[in-house]
Amino acid sequence: MTDERYMKMALGLAKRGAPWASPNPLVGAVIVRDGRIIGKGWHRCCGENHAEINAIENAAEPVRGSTVYITLEPCSHHGRTPPCVERLVSEKPARVVIGTVDPNPLVSGRGVAALKRHGIETRVGVLEDQCREINEAFFKFIRTRIPFVTLKFAQSLDGKIATSTGHSRWISSEPSRVFAHRLRSLHDAILVGSGTVTKDDPELTCRLIKGRDPLRVVIDSKLKISPGARVLQDQDRVRTLVFTTSGQDKKKSKLLMNEGIEVRVAGTRQVDLSAVLSELGRRQVSSLLVEGGAGVITSFIRERLADRIIIISAPKLFGKGTDAIGELSVRTVDQAIPLAIRQVTHKGGDVIVDARFIHD
Amino acid sequence: MTDERYMKMALGLAKRGAPWASPNPLVGAVIVRDGRIIGKGWHRCCGENHAEINAIENAAEPVRGSTVYITLEPCSHHGRTPPCVERLVSEKPARVVIGTVDPNPLVSGRGVAALKRHGIETRVGVLEDQCREINEAFFKFIRTRIPFVTLKFAQSLDGKIATSTGHSRWISSEPSRVFAHRLRSLHDAILVGSGTVTKDDPELTCRLIKGRDPLRVVIDSKLKISPGARVLQDQDRVRTLVFTTSGQDKKKSKLLMNEGIEVRVAGTRQVDLSAVLSELGRRQVSSLLVEGGAGVITSFIRERLADRIIIISAPKLFGKGTDAIGELSVRTVDQAIPLAIRQVTHKGGDVIVDARFIHD
Repeated sequence: MTDERYMKMALGLAKRGAPWASPNPLVGAVIVRDGRIIGKGWHRCCGENHAEINAIENAAEPVRGSTVYITLEPCSHHGRTPPCVERLVSEKPARVVIGTVDPNPLVSGRGVAALKRHGIETRVGVLEDQCREINEAFFKFIRTRIPFVTLKFAQSLDGKIATSTGHSRWISSEPSRVFAHRLRSLHDAILVGSGTVTKDDPELTCRLIKGRDPLRVVIDSKLKISPGARVLQDQDRVRTLVFTTSGQDKKKSKLLMNEGIEVRVAGTRQVDLSAVLSELGRRQVSSLLVEGGAGVITSFIRERLADRIIIISAPKLFGKGTDAIGELSVRTVDQAIPLAIRQVTHKGGDVIVDARFIHD
Repeated sequence: MTDERYMKMALGLAKRGAPWASPNPLVGAVIVRDGRIIGKGWHRCCGENHAEINAIENAAEPVRGSTVYITLEPCSHHGRTPPCVERLVSEKPARVVIGTVDPNPLVSGRGVAALKRHGIETRVGVLEDQCREINEAFFKFIRTRIPFVTLKFAQSLDGKIATSTGHSRWISSEPSRVFAHRLRSLHDAILVGSGTVTKDDPELTCRLIKGRDPLRVVIDSKLKISPGARVLQDQDRVRTLVFTTSGQDKKKSKLLMNEGIEVRVAGTRQVDLSAVLSELGRRQVSSLLVEGGAGVITSFIRERLADRIIIISAPKLFGKGTDAIGELSVRTVDQAIPLAIRQVTHKGGDVIVDARFIHD
């Protein structure tokens, strides 16, 4: 169980890297000799040292003969930084314990092979599920180049995102809204539909917490968004990308572009969400938070493009009102869209359900 | 903290009385001398000994000079059994610690006064909230003679009790259905609307567990229930009470009554739910579980007759479908029906939210 204990510590360190490590994975490392921890490190920021290098450089004594715990397989190729495996080999630890292998099929297993080739005892697969889970977005992105998509909305306990008159502010509690802003800062981009922009006029920034503001994305098939919308302001600080369809008013498009807003065409009559995801992937967006409204959320579910759903249910009943999710062509219970519930928490009186879509 | 520790133990014993103690409250008692537990008891069954008497009679040594912990104030009046206070006084404990006073305004505080009058040191109000909570149904019933009403339904995570075609079997998991049967056995009566009888043809018994089968109640304004419905069978084992309106087909009524089913009139056009609750109260039904359908559940909420709501959400999405709750005349978020979430559990993949209605 000792390996598990140190890996757990490395996992805790890895999480400190959020959100600045993105689009790199969160990685943590611990160096142990004779039951003493002699070095700790994590990947702090994309472009900076990897976790194991930080641990080596922070080590209080030589690494030779020690055991190095790393949540993810060390890289064996030159990227923004030199390969970590080379450095590890040169430090001559007796043993390396790895949480999980690199998800990239092109390099997966190469780091492990290199360590073994240099006679370093190597164990792979300690707390593997947890080491994968902390990087689930990265793992999907590295394999598919499509961002990991999380849907998030607040509803009444009876599943309504607005009352029968369309009123919706505020459904959830203040602590839940802080949680929602933290969630934003952990994503590379946030997406909403033009209906939500018109109705709620959100800024889509992380005002309630100290954190990184992600790229803002608006889906606007008919380009009806107002140039005065809050989501379009402050372009020098946070960028906004608008997706629309071909054949929209070129003048309107120019107007927005003159304000420094990028407008992209994806689709002819409806914005093609698959094309949007591919484009975001090309821009190194590895994780996308979809905040609404119901139309956009329903489309992501119907087109099987969502990976995760976070539903914040407030302790109140609306009765008749606006459904969070529209037509999914579910006729019988066994045709329902299946989810796996990962976590249920109770925050500020609200119930937060965090689930994953089960794709075949 | 010692008093709290023994009271907690008494609370644990009290819970063993469910459901047979009903309509009496759940009560537990522990007798302690010099840090040793010398007696334990609980109220096992309505009509039998109260908890403190069982504890005294189970005591391994004389009670004189000991401390007696009881979750509820001992009774001072003759009911089905002689007053417990008299017996306690005759046993001469040095001290009595009481969780909470009797909720019945006619006798509340009398047991405490009698103990003090006889020179027994008496402390009241230890783990008071918990001692009240285990008997919340009883506490309401004893004050109002109206049963404590719990609404319960299973829904998809997006708040639907059936798909767009009306299909609903089964939304929740097997463990949740066992939980639902246990919940039935903890209530004195279960109620459904005639629509649910026609659509689902439930038996409304506790087949999945070993437990008491509560009285079955059907709300049927137009008396359209089929005499062959499962809920009307087995009258020699479990009774069914049908509430309808005046002016319904007397022949149909007779037909049901000939089968041993009791048919009561409550209301002229719609069954009057307040009248139903009063009638059930007269019959010593202290707790009522309302299982649906949407119409009946909505009426209980709209008429502010519900005390508790248990929502079992299955990890699946239906999109368009049947809402659990209909029109509540909620226009703005601040007009929503407020709830206080008491417990959130995760059972067999489902999320179970247990909440209380907040009445002004």
